[in-house]
Amino acid sequence: MTSSPTDSKATNIVWHEAAVDRDSRASQRGHRSAILWFTGLSGAGKSTLANAVNVELFQWGLATYVLDGDNVRHGLCCDLGFSDADREENIRRIGEVAKLFLDAGVITLTAFVSPFRADRDRARALVGSGDFIEIHCAAGLEICEQRDPKGLYAKARAGVIKEFTGISSPYEAPESPELRIDTSGRLEDNVAEVISYLEGQGLIAAD
Amino acid sequence: MTSSPTDSKATNIVWHEAAVDRDSRASQRGHRSAILWFTGLSGAGKSTLANAVNVELFQWGLATYVLDGDNVRHGLCCDLGFSDADREENIRRIGEVAKLFLDAGVITLTAFVSPFRADRDRARALVGSGDFIEIHCAAGLEICEQRDPKGLYAKARAGVIKEFTGISSPYEAPESPELRIDTSGRLEDNVAEVISYLEGQGLIAAD
Repeated sequence: MTSSPTDSKATNIVWHEAAVDRDSRASQRGHRSAILWFTGLSGAGKSTLANAVNVELFQWGLATYVLDGDNVRHGLCCDLGFSDADREENIRRIGEVAKLFLDAGVITLTAFVSPFRADRDRARALVGSGDFIEIHCAAGLEICEQRDPKGLYAKARAGVIKEFTGISSPYEAPESPELRIDTSGRLEDNVAEVISYLEGQGLIAAD
Repeated sequence: MTSSPTDSKATNIVWHEAAVDRDSRASQRGHRSAILWFTGLSGAGKSTLANAVNVELFQWGLATYVLDGDNVRHGLCCDLGFSDADREENIRRIGEVAKLFLDAGVITLTAFVSPFRADRDRARALVGSGDFIEIHCAAGLEICEQRDPKGLYAKARAGVIKEFTGISSPYEAPESPELRIDTSGRLEDNVAEVISYLEGQGLIAAD
């Protein structure tokens, strides 16, 4: 809080000491915040897994939020297309917004293809070590293409969509993600793996 | 949550029913979210007031967050300058981020000059009626220029800063803000006014 000349000094001191920061939020809520960055091919189940973990964490009473295509692409990033520059800017903004949520004490789950290592690393570098948990949703291309929940692979194969990740544009898999999950398996198992990791890190704790 | 072909139907139903939305967050936390949009001249005390209200609400145990120049201009909006187009885009992004925080159940306080009515109205239109509380920090230009906490008015008068709000660029005061506060007065009184308004709206309630 900045002071203004009309404030009494005593008031400023009291309010300054009480300033709300990430630590005070963690103390009040009983848990730290973190960014859970889900990355993987289209159809790998990032959003499904992130939302399922979110439900689980919410039921534990934790402050959480999912950023994904549904609430970001049509809003904050509605001015961006799919050129290389725009995809980079998209991920940059998501990283910055995730950082704000982190600061607000919220466990933030982001679910975007985010195919390029450099973009993910930039997002990681925005926040402190231990605050960024990269989760590779590692269903293989064949399975993702079979699922094709939005019909995007079909369009990419037909050449209707250019530069589609996995088909005509590379997916740079994380080399050492905090967590690599085989999302061709059962959702319940995948959720349990994430929860178990978060418990192991002391980020969350069963009562 | 979107379903994926490998999930069992039963699981999908259970998890879908438990999906976390704004209402379920409000129920769990015991309070609704809202956007408190502070607007006014540089030096009017927007950030001071927003942060003081934030401390107060935090002490009530509520989920809150302040978006201001400190955490937005160097991060999410670091690519933007001060041209008309960039200022508009700056406010657009802030509105979109505030909307995400609103959805996350957080009482979100934004503290930006936001001089143009059209930009503020666009931010208001993003969210539902009753979710956007415009607070005009209405210290007069003379007082703001006397305070000049960052030396910006001096630079604007010297022509070093072009298009400075109140000097060489207009400030379009809100015509019917939810709250107009004389921020030339005492901070404690200003905070009390905001809190009293929020109580009157049933947004917050003393235990």
